[in-house]
Amino acid sequence: MYDLKPIFEPKSVAIIGAAREPGKIGNVIVRNFVDSGFTGEIYPVNPNATEVDGLKCYKSVLAIPKKVDSAVIAIPARLVPQALEECGRKGVRGVVVISGGFAEVGNYELEAQLATIAKKYGMAVVGPNCLGVVNPSAKVDSIFLPTYKMGRPKVGGVAFIMQSGAVGSTILDLIAREGFGISKFVSYGNAAVVDETDLLEYLAKDKQTRIIILYIEGVKRGKEFFKATKKLAKIKPIVAIKAGTTEVGASAAKSHTGSLAGNYAAYHALFRQNRVIEARTLDEVFDFAKIFETQPHCTGKRVAIITNGGGMGVLTTDAVIENGMELAEFTEETRAKVKETMPLTVNARNPLDLTGDADASRYEAALNLAYGDPTVDAIIVITLFQTVSLDSRVVDVVVKAAGKGEKPLITIALGGEYTEMQRRALESSGVPSYASPSAAAKSLAKLIEYSRFTAKAKKR
Amino acid sequence: MYDLKPIFEPKSVAIIGAAREPGKIGNVIVRNFVDSGFTGEIYPVNPNATEVDGLKCYKSVLAIPKKVDSAVIAIPARLVPQALEECGRKGVRGVVVISGGFAEVGNYELEAQLATIAKKYGMAVVGPNCLGVVNPSAKVDSIFLPTYKMGRPKVGGVAFIMQSGAVGSTILDLIAREGFGISKFVSYGNAAVVDETDLLEYLAKDKQTRIIILYIEGVKRGKEFFKATKKLAKIKPIVAIKAGTTEVGASAAKSHTGSLAGNYAAYHALFRQNRVIEARTLDEVFDFAKIFETQPHCTGKRVAIITNGGGMGVLTTDAVIENGMELAEFTEETRAKVKETMPLTVNARNPLDLTGDADASRYEAALNLAYGDPTVDAIIVITLFQTVSLDSRVVDVVVKAAGKGEKPLITIALGGEYTEMQRRALESSGVPSYASPSAAAKSLAKLIEYSRFTAKAKKR
Repeated sequence: MYDLKPIFEPKSVAIIGAAREPGKIGNVIVRNFVDSGFTGEIYPVNPNATEVDGLKCYKSVLAIPKKVDSAVIAIPARLVPQALEECGRKGVRGVVVISGGFAEVGNYELEAQLATIAKKYGMAVVGPNCLGVVNPSAKVDSIFLPTYKMGRPKVGGVAFIMQSGAVGSTILDLIAREGFGISKFVSYGNAAVVDETDLLEYLAKDKQTRIIILYIEGVKRGKEFFKATKKLAKIKPIVAIKAGTTEVGASAAKSHTGSLAGNYAAYHALFRQNRVIEARTLDEVFDFAKIFETQPHCTGKRVAIITNGGGMGVLTTDAVIENGMELAEFTEETRAKVKETMPLTVNARNPLDLTGDADASRYEAALNLAYGDPTVDAIIVITLFQTVSLDSRVVDVVVKAAGKGEKPLITIALGGEYTEMQRRALESSGVPSYASPSAAAKSLAKLIEYSRFTAKAKKR
Repeated sequence: MYDLKPIFEPKSVAIIGAAREPGKIGNVIVRNFVDSGFTGEIYPVNPNATEVDGLKCYKSVLAIPKKVDSAVIAIPARLVPQALEECGRKGVRGVVVISGGFAEVGNYELEAQLATIAKKYGMAVVGPNCLGVVNPSAKVDSIFLPTYKMGRPKVGGVAFIMQSGAVGSTILDLIAREGFGISKFVSYGNAAVVDETDLLEYLAKDKQTRIIILYIEGVKRGKEFFKATKKLAKIKPIVAIKAGTTEVGASAAKSHTGSLAGNYAAYHALFRQNRVIEARTLDEVFDFAKIFETQPHCTGKRVAIITNGGGMGVLTTDAVIENGMELAEFTEETRAKVKETMPLTVNARNPLDLTGDADASRYEAALNLAYGDPTVDAIIVITLFQTVSLDSRVVDVVVKAAGKGEKPLITIALGGEYTEMQRRALESSGVPSYASPSAAAKSLAKLIEYSRFTAKAKKR
C-alpha cells in the first residue's frame, strides 16, 4: 500500500513544469500554492528559468538542496518518466502527475512506465491526466484552474474522490458557492498507480472526513474495491456516482479516461449490497453530501413538516411518503399547544401550515414543539421568503434549533435573489437547504436508510 | 363561460380594501399597480380614507364616477359578498378576490354566496384565497407581495395557472431571477367561480402564450377538464404538476385549498392519455417550461453532445440514452472536418469532446458542424467555465447558433459565481441552460415526445 500522506499533507512541494507566464498551467499551480497560504516550502522546477513568481527555480528536482516530500508534475507526457525517475532518486514520497497524453489517447506503454517507476521507489503517484489534490486545512492546492474561474471550498467534512477532472472541478466550484466545506479533494485521472480503492482506504481513516463522495467511470481492481466498500461503508457513508451506466456512455468513458466502465448492473448490485449510497445524478451527489455532512443519524422515519405555504406542504408530504417515510402524528400535548399559542388559521396537524403571515417567532414556537414531540424523528422546515412577514430572523431561529443536533433538520426554500441569500446563510451555518421537496425528502430518506444500516451493524 | 379579458387586461381597476399603511396587503396592491406602470385608471376603495398613495380614494365601488372594468378585493371574508354585489351593480366584469377565510377553513356557505352573486351578474371572479393575476405586457399585478421579496418576471411566452399562491409566488420569484419571461400568471385559489378549465380555455387562445403550466391540487369539473385538455394539448403544450399524489398528501391538500384531490392514478392516466406533459417535481416544471418556450419542435431523436470535459460528456450520454434518445452518428464529412480543423486530442466522435483547452472559436466550429450535419436532430452543449480558456465569448457563440432556430439547442453548465453569470446570460438570451445532464436530457426528451405527438395529430 502506498502512503498517501505526502500527497495530502506535504511539508515541501516541488512543482515540476513551473512557468513564468501568467495563465500557463505551470504558473497557475505555483500561484495557487502561494495564494492559498501553504506554509511549507515551494520549489519551482524548470530548466529554463531561475525564478518563478519570486521563488528560486531549480533545473531539476535533484538540484533542490533540501528534502522534498511531494511533487506536482505538469510537463509534456514524453518527459514525465524521466522527471518521475528523478523524484524517486530524490526520495520524493508522493507525486501528482497532472499531464495528459497517456492511456486516454492510447499511450499505454508510456503509462506503464510510470507504474514501473512508482513501484521501484514505493512512491505514491496520483494521475496522470488529472486535476490533482486540494486539502484546505493544509493549504494544499495543485489544481491548475484559476480561483476566479473556480472557487475553492472552505474546510469541512466531505471528501471527494473524482476520476474525472471536469466533473470534479464543477463540483468544487459549486460547493465553494454553496458554502459548505470539504476535507479532501482528489481528481485521480487514469489511476496508473494510486486508484479509487487506495484513496477510499486512506480517506476512511482520515479524521476530518465524515463522508466520502466517489465519482467513477470504472474501477481498476474490482475485487479489492468490493472488499474496501464492504468494510468502509460501515465506518463512513460513501456516496457513489457511476458514469457510463449505459452501453453508449460506457463506450464514451473508454475514450475519456481509458476506463473499462464495465457492466453497470454489476456496479449497481455492488453498491446495493455493500450499502454504498448511490447517486444517479450530480444533483443527488450534492443533495446527499450536505445532509450527511451536517445532520445527526436518525433511525426513525416520522417526519414533521413545518411550512408557511399550504401548497408546498402538500408537495412535501407527497415527497415524504413517496420516499418511504411517514408524517409524524404529533402528541395530544403538541396539538393542544398549537391551538393555544397559534392563530385560529393554523390547523394543529402535520404538515403544520403556519400560514402566509407567519413570522420568525411563530417558526420558533413550532420548532420547539417539533423538537419536544416524541412522535417526531426528523424535521423539514419550508420557508417561503416571498411573504411580507418572513425575513432573515427565521434563519437565526432555524440555525439555533438545528444547533441542538438532536434530530435531523433540513429546509426547503425556493425563489429569487432574496431567498437565495437566506438559503446560503442557512447552508453556511450547517443547515442543508433544498430547492425542492423531492430533493429534500430523497436526501432525508437516504440518511435514515444509512442510519438504520449502521445501527444494525453495530448491534451485531 | 366567463369573459376573462377584464381580469387580465383591464382598462380600469378598483382596489377594494386599499390601505394607507405601507406593508399592508391593501397598500402593497395599490403600490404594485402604480409601480408596475399600469396605464389604466386605478381607483382605491376604502370607506375610511380619502387618499391612498396620492390617488383619490372612494367609499365604495359604487361611488366611482367612471366605468370600472375590474376589481381586486382584499378585505375580511365576511365583508366580501357585499363588496362583490356592489361590483355587480356597478357593472364590473372581472373580480379577483384575494381574501382568505372561505372553504379552506370550512366556510362553504360564504363561498357559495360568491358563486351566486358572480352568476347573477355574469361576472368573472377569480379566487377567493388566492394571489391573483400578473400580466406583464398589460402591467397588471394584483399580487400583494412586495417586489423586493418576490421579483416580477419580464414578458415572455409561459402562462402559469396555479392553484396554490405559495407555490405560485416561489415560481414567479424564481423565474424573475432566472431571466425568462411569462405571458400570464394566475393564482386562482379556491376556484369558487372561475376554475382551471376556464383558465386553460382562455390561455389556449391567448396569442402571447406559447406554453401553459398548471399546478393543481384537484380540479372542479372533471369531465370538462378532460375535454379541455384533450382539445388544447394539441394546440399548445400543457405541463401539469399535481400535488396530493399520495393519500396523505391529498388529505393535506383538502385542508389547504379545500380541494378533493382525488385519486392520483386517475390524473396520471388523464395526463398520459391527453398528452399533458406531467412534471413530477417543481424542478421539472422549470426545466420543461424553458425548453418549450424557446426551442423549435423536433421529431428526430439523434442528439449531438459537444463538451469541453470528458466526464460530463459521459454523464450526458448516459442521460440521453436513459431518456430514450440516441447519439447522432455524424457523417463522414463531419468526422473528416473535425480531424482536419481540430487538435489531435479531439476525437471525431460523439460526444464531441473539445477537451479542456477549448475556446469559443472551437465551440463555434463544432456548432457549425453539428448544425450542418443531417444525422443530428438536436444539440446539447456542455460548457464548463472552470477551464482557463473558456470565457463569456462562448455565450455569444452559442446564442448566435441557437438563433438560427433550426434544431433545438440546450446547454449544461454547473459551477459557482462565474458559471452562474454565464448561465443567466444564456437563459436571458433564450438558450435553456441546465445544471445537470439528467435535467437537460429529460427536458429534451419531453420536447421531442410532444413534437412527435403534434406532428402526428396534424397528419390526421
